[in-house]
Amino acid sequence: MASAAKTEYPPEISKEEEHYLLSNLKDWSIAHGLAVRPAPSFVQPSQDPSGVLASTAPVTLFPSLFPKSCFEDGLVIQKAYNELYSAIARDEAWLQSIVEELVDIDDFVAKLWQTHLAVKKEGYVQELSLGLFRSDYMVHKDPAHSDPAPGLKQVEFNTIASSFGGLSSQVSALHKYLLTIDAYPASATSIIKENALRQSKSASSLAQGLATAHKAYGASKTSRPLCVLFVVQDPERNVFDQRHLEYALLEQNGVRSFRLPFGETLVHTKLDGDRTLVYTPPNSPSTTYEVTTIYFRAGYSPDDYPKEEDWAARLHLEKSRAIKCPSILTHLAGCKKVQQVLATPHSPHLKRFLPDPAVAERVLATFAPIYPLDDSEAGKEARKHATDPSSASRYVLKPQREGGGNNIYRKAIPPFLEKLPETHWPAYILMEMIEPPPLTNAVLRNGELQRGGVICELGVYGVCLWKDRSGSDSKGEILENWEAGYLLRTKGDQSEEGGVAAGFGAVDSVCLVD
Amino acid sequence: MASAAKTEYPPEISKEEEHYLLSNLKDWSIAHGLAVRPAPSFVQPSQDPSGVLASTAPVTLFPSLFPKSCFEDGLVIQKAYNELYSAIARDEAWLQSIVEELVDIDDFVAKLWQTHLAVKKEGYVQELSLGLFRSDYMVHKDPAHSDPAPGLKQVEFNTIASSFGGLSSQVSALHKYLLTIDAYPASATSIIKENALRQSKSASSLAQGLATAHKAYGASKTSRPLCVLFVVQDPERNVFDQRHLEYALLEQNGVRSFRLPFGETLVHTKLDGDRTLVYTPPNSPSTTYEVTTIYFRAGYSPDDYPKEEDWAARLHLEKSRAIKCPSILTHLAGCKKVQQVLATPHSPHLKRFLPDPAVAERVLATFAPIYPLDDSEAGKEARKHATDPSSASRYVLKPQREGGGNNIYRKAIPPFLEKLPETHWPAYILMEMIEPPPLTNAVLRNGELQRGGVICELGVYGVCLWKDRSGSDSKGEILENWEAGYLLRTKGDQSEEGGVAAGFGAVDSVCLVD
Repeated sequence: MASAAKTEYPPEISKEEEHYLLSNLKDWSIAHGLAVRPAPSFVQPSQDPSGVLASTAPVTLFPSLFPKSCFEDGLVIQKAYNELYSAIARDEAWLQSIVEELVDIDDFVAKLWQTHLAVKKEGYVQELSLGLFRSDYMVHKDPAHSDPAPGLKQVEFNTIASSFGGLSSQVSALHKYLLTIDAYPASATSIIKENALRQSKSASSLAQGLATAHKAYGASKTSRPLCVLFVVQDPERNVFDQRHLEYALLEQNGVRSFRLPFGETLVHTKLDGDRTLVYTPPNSPSTTYEVTTIYFRAGYSPDDYPKEEDWAARLHLEKSRAIKCPSILTHLAGCKKVQQVLATPHSPHLKRFLPDPAVAERVLATFAPIYPLDDSEAGKEARKHATDPSSASRYVLKPQREGGGNNIYRKAIPPFLEKLPETHWPAYILMEMIEPPPLTNAVLRNGELQRGGVICELGVYGVCLWKDRSGSDSKGEILENWEAGYLLRTKGDQSEEGGVAAGFGAVDSVCLVD
Repeated sequence: MASAAKTEYPPEISKEEEHYLLSNLKDWSIAHGLAVRPAPSFVQPSQDPSGVLASTAPVTLFPSLFPKSCFEDGLVIQKAYNELYSAIARDEAWLQSIVEELVDIDDFVAKLWQTHLAVKKEGYVQELSLGLFRSDYMVHKDPAHSDPAPGLKQVEFNTIASSFGGLSSQVSALHKYLLTIDAYPASATSIIKENALRQSKSASSLAQGLATAHKAYGASKTSRPLCVLFVVQDPERNVFDQRHLEYALLEQNGVRSFRLPFGETLVHTKLDGDRTLVYTPPNSPSTTYEVTTIYFRAGYSPDDYPKEEDWAARLHLEKSRAIKCPSILTHLAGCKKVQQVLATPHSPHLKRFLPDPAVAERVLATFAPIYPLDDSEAGKEARKHATDPSSASRYVLKPQREGGGNNIYRKAIPPFLEKLPETHWPAYILMEMIEPPPLTNAVLRNGELQRGGVICELGVYGVCLWKDRSGSDSKGEILENWEAGYLLRTKGDQSEEGGVAAGFGAVDSVCLVD
C-alpha cells in the first residue's frame, strides 16, 4: 500500500469536485434504494407519522483502500468458516459444555439453551438448517514488526441476522457508478480504477440461499402455498437492506416472503398437527401459508424479548417444521464464548470441527488471540497483562454477555478492573487489539459530511445449508456451502465501537491495492 | 366499464389490508427510486440543508380503471402525432403565421420567435431535431348521448420537457408488484389482474431516443469525448424522474450525460469555431466534452428566464451544432395556439401536415373542439356560448399565453368575461370540456392518504428524430418515429388543474377494462 499512504488517499478535492460527487451520490443512492429511514434525531416521528421519508444511507464518498491479498483471503476462507460453524451447530454436546460456562453470567444464553432443550424434549422435526453467516475481519499489521505483511484478523462471526447484505450490493455499485461518471478526480485514477473495485453479490447470493432452503423444504404437506417468513424488528430503520433480499427472492427466485414483527409471532402463526408452521397474513385471513424457512432479522438481542411471551414465540418457531435461519444451536454457535475458546492459544477445539489440518491452519491464522480472565493458567497470565498499564494497551476487554457494546479499550482496562470485584472478572474476555493500518475517508451521514481517519471492517457472507446429525454417530451433512459476497463497513477511528445502523459508521466498498 | 362502477372500484379495504398495502408501497417506492425530494411544506430546507431526504412520490394505491380501447387508441395514434408535430416544426412559414397572432399578447412566444430569427440570420448548422413528446388525453363520454362509447380527447401536446417518463415506469412496476404480493384484496382480482396491467417502457424508451440522437450526431469534430446535456431547473424536486432517464442512457446505451442548470449555461458551455457546443464540467475543467444533444428539462416557462442573460443562453444553445430536444421551432409547435387552430372545427390546417386523410381523420377524432374569442365567425359564435351561463358550463376558458394555470371553468366564465375588456378577449380560447367518467381512487402524497373521486389523464410518449427541410421544396425527412410508453396522472376531481409535481395529483398506471 506504499502508493496509497494516508496523505494521498482519498485525494483532496475542490469544492466543485465535491459538489459533483455529492449531488450524484445523493441522487443515485435514493434512486437505487441505498437508503435508510431517517433517525429520530434527524426527522422526528411526529413530522412524518406515516413514514414516507427516507435518506441516503450512511456511506463513504470513496471506496476504502484494502489489501488485495487480504480481501481474497477473506473470500476464499469463507467456505471453511461455513463448515466450521455448521459443524459446531451440529455438535450439541460440545455446545452444551460452552453454554454451561455461561449460564451464570448470561441469562440470554441460558434462555436460548432452555428453549433448545424444550424443543429437544419433544423432538426436532426438521433436520435441515440454514446459515446466512457473516465473518467480520480487520486488516492487522503487527506493530512488533517493522514491515509486516498485512493479514486478516477476525473480529466476530455472525450466525444470526447478518445485516447489510442488501445495502452492500448497492454501495459497491454506487462507487462503480461514481468512477464511471468521473466523480473521482483524475489524480486518483491510478488507484481507483475499474479492476480495483469489487461488486458485492451479497443481495442476490443471500436471497439465493433462502431460495435454496425454501426449495429443499419440499412440497407443502397441507396443500397451502409456501412462503419464507422474515421475522423482523418493528420499526426497522434499516428496512431497505432487508427489502433488497425480499425483492431478489421474489424476482430472481420466484419465492414469496412475508415480514412478521417478532412480537406478533403468536398472533399470526400457528403450528399445524405435524408442527407445520402456518402463517396467516393479517391482511388476508382466509389465505394461510405454509412457512418453509424462518429468516430471523430479530431475536438476536435480549432487547427483542421484553415479555415472557417473546420466549414462548421463539420456542414456538423453533419447534416448527420450518427450516430455521438460524436454529437456536446455530444462534448459540455464534456466541462470543465460542469464538473465545476457538481463539485461545493452543486450543484443541478447532481440529474437532475442521478435521483437515491445512484448512484448520488457515482458519486459525485469522484468529486474534483471546484469553479468558478466569482461574486457568491462561487466565492467570491474561490477568497480569490486563492489570499492567504498559501491556494493557495492546488489548480490548469484552463482556462475554451477548448484545454488543460496553467494550473497554487499552489503558482504560486496568482502572476498570480495579473497580470490579474479582469474582466478576470471568464475565469478560481479553482480546489482543487488531491494529489496522491508518486510513482516511469521508462519510456522508444524516446529511453531514465527515472526514478523517477511519477503520474498516470487512464482512464476508456465507450461505450454508446442512442436515443435522440424525443418529448418534452421524455428523450430519452439508448440502450447500458457498461464499456470498462481502460488506465493507467503515467508521471513524475515534470511536472504537462498530455498527453502521447504530450510528457509528457507514457502508463502503473496497478499492483493492497490492 | 359496467363491471367497475364507481361504487365497486377500488375495493373497500380493511385496516389490516390498508396497512399491508401501504407498508409495502412505501418501502418498494424508496427501494426503486419512485421518489421526489420533499416539498418545503413537508421538510423545511433548513432541516436538511444538504438535501439527503426523499419521500415516496405522490402515487395512487390502485391502478386506475381505463377503457382498453382508449388506451390502445392512444398508443397507436402516437406515431401520427409525432409525424404531425415534427411536420409543424419543419414548417417555419406556417409557424410564423401562428406566432404573428400571438406576439402582442404573449411576450414569451415573441421572445422565442426572435431567438429563432436570430439564429436563422446566421444560419442553422444542425439539420437534425429530436422530439421527446407527450400527448395528454382524457377519456370523454359525451353527455349528450345516453350510452356513448368512451373516446380519447386530447388535453394538450407537450413538445418540451415532457416529464414523468422515469417515474411512470416505476409506478406501473409498483402496481404490478402489489398485485403479485396480494396487496389487492381477493374481491378485486377479477378486475386487477396481470393481463389488465401495462408496464410503461417510458424510461428506457425515452433514453433510447436520446441515445439515437446522440449516435446520429456522428463523431466529434474536435476529438473530444461526446455527451448529452440535460439542461435543468435548480433545485429540482422531481429529480429522480430525470435521473432514471440518465441511468438508462448510461447503463442501456453507454452514453454519458451531464446536468447543467439552465442559469449556468453561459458559464460552463461555449461555442467552438464551427459552433460545436463544448461543455466544461465544473468539477473537471481540464476535460471538455462535445455536446451531441441538448435535452431541455428547463426553459419551457417564462419563470426560467428571470434575466436577459437567460435569453442569451437560449440563443447560444440554439445556435450550436448540438441536436436540440427540442429546437425552438419544435418548442413553438407545442404552444396552445397551434392546438387551437388545429382543433377549430373545419380547420384546413391538419391536412397540410398529415397528407394521408385516414391518418388525419384519426387524429382529428381525438381533438376536443376549440374556439377563438376573436372577431372571426367562429369567434363570434364562441363569444355567445361563453357569455351565456347555460351553455358556458360545457366549456373551459384558457389563456393563450404559455405557462399553465389560470384556467376559468364552466359557470365562472360569464362573470369573468364581464369584468374583462373585450379587447382582451382574444387572449383566451374556449375549449369544450372533456367529460371523463366518474372514477375513485386513493392517493398517498406527503404521507397523507386521500380518497375520493379522481380524474385521470393519459399521457403517451413519442420519440421522433427528423431532418429539417434543407431546400425550398424539401419537407425534411423523419429518421426515427416510435411510441415510447405511457403515463397515467391522477388528480382529485375537486381540483380542475393538473400537474403532479405542482401539488395537485399523483402518478398512476392503468388497469384496463373492456
